[in-house]
Amino acid sequence: MAKDVPYELIYWPGPPGRGEHIRLVLEEAAAEYTDTAQAEGQGGLDQVLAFVQGTVPDDGINPPTLAPPILKHGELVISQTPNILQYLGSRLGLADKDNDGVYRVNALALTALDGLSNEAHDCHHPIAPGLYYEDQKEESKRKATDYVTNRLPKFMSYFERVLGSKSSGDGPWLYGGKLTYADLVLFQCVDGLKFMFPKAMSKLEREGKHAKVFSLHHAVAQRPQISAYLKSARRQKYSHGIYRYYKELDIEP
Amino acid sequence: MAKDVPYELIYWPGPPGRGEHIRLVLEEAAAEYTDTAQAEGQGGLDQVLAFVQGTVPDDGINPPTLAPPILKHGELVISQTPNILQYLGSRLGLADKDNDGVYRVNALALTALDGLSNEAHDCHHPIAPGLYYEDQKEESKRKATDYVTNRLPKFMSYFERVLGSKSSGDGPWLYGGKLTYADLVLFQCVDGLKFMFPKAMSKLEREGKHAKVFSLHHAVAQRPQISAYLKSARRQKYSHGIYRYYKELDIEP
Repeated sequence: MAKDVPYELIYWPGPPGRGEHIRLVLEEAAAEYTDTAQAEGQGGLDQVLAFVQGTVPDDGINPPTLAPPILKHGELVISQTPNILQYLGSRLGLADKDNDGVYRVNALALTALDGLSNEAHDCHHPIAPGLYYEDQKEESKRKATDYVTNRLPKFMSYFERVLGSKSSGDGPWLYGGKLTYADLVLFQCVDGLKFMFPKAMSKLEREGKHAKVFSLHHAVAQRPQISAYLKSARRQKYSHGIYRYYKELDIEP
Repeated sequence: MAKDVPYELIYWPGPPGRGEHIRLVLEEAAAEYTDTAQAEGQGGLDQVLAFVQGTVPDDGINPPTLAPPILKHGELVISQTPNILQYLGSRLGLADKDNDGVYRVNALALTALDGLSNEAHDCHHPIAPGLYYEDQKEESKRKATDYVTNRLPKFMSYFERVLGSKSSGDGPWLYGGKLTYADLVLFQCVDGLKFMFPKAMSKLEREGKHAKVFSLHHAVAQRPQISAYLKSARRQKYSHGIYRYYKELDIEP
């Protein structure tokens, strides 16, 4: 089952988006990988479109994929952020080695993606992913207000509770005293939320009730591989992806 | 690693909700399990609340859980629907046996849950999960209109494409010619959507462009274990869970 070929990330060139979760795992593990977002000219976009339009995969082994991020590794083609993370996490030493631990870590990653990434995305697209933000601005304001007031503190408090529980072990990490891909997911969520909702996030940071979550964000950023990556040109700027800055949504809760 | 104890499903008594995906896997496999939704009197709700309020797990091994469905199996406590499905699928012969296949099946299950369950839920709660439907009725109508017009056909067409691809193998199933938990997930999604959006779903069925998806729904319902389950009192009626019927959201696309 050894696959000594580089990983291939297929993701939209442009904003970091959901692809960023995959990149952080690959970067932390110093894995060899290609990224369509880094391809020259039109090449990356064309590769993404071939998957989205269903031209590939056409190998009879892998089911068609609906949307990026997509990971290609040798013969295997898989989609869905948490699924790719789990695959890479197991291979790259960023999941738990114990079978039960695998599922505990996966639950944490899924919960962070649900509440701190998918719901954040829905704050600027509450009505329809296919419509422009401008066509759902009123609804966005209503949703973002609820989000920063109720949902964001709820999820941040949950992760603070996880980090304070005995199951997190020693050190800054979520589970078993060791860095896993769930930590990298939470880092990216907190990072994106700081960009999208600076007022709400600095209020939470000032209040001090989520100190362990903010410490985890800091600890991930200090990892040698991650720190080098964040300074590199490979780390894209937030723009029109999951985490977007709109002044009118930057609500003080 | 053998755990010869019954599975314990912790889920809200009342609507089938997300817990239903877990039940279908357990029922198809004829696995021994308990279900808080079936507990006498107040007992089931109290058990759910103990997890939601963080009283349990307090074992120092399992991280706190945020929301049901939760699965307890011996010492292991895990949350998140797709995570529980993956755990059970592997143990109960409803995932692929091949390591790569595990991730292919998981991607299909995650995609169905995203587009045909989570997005359907958001049609009656587009602004805030904590508000009543009545407080987001206007936005719900707008979201449901987009959903039945754009999103629902998109996801249904995707699964029709998967079922028509060589990777699905022979027979009615999504992957490798064998029933997996992804098929059970798609069954429940189609079933719930037929309840929630009867006009849109019968239009899709009449048009005949998604015949393979509707055949899969039929084929799952005919499985001996599932058929017996669907007729039993354990199968709860749709009410105020993920799939709800509101006349004003039953839009003819």
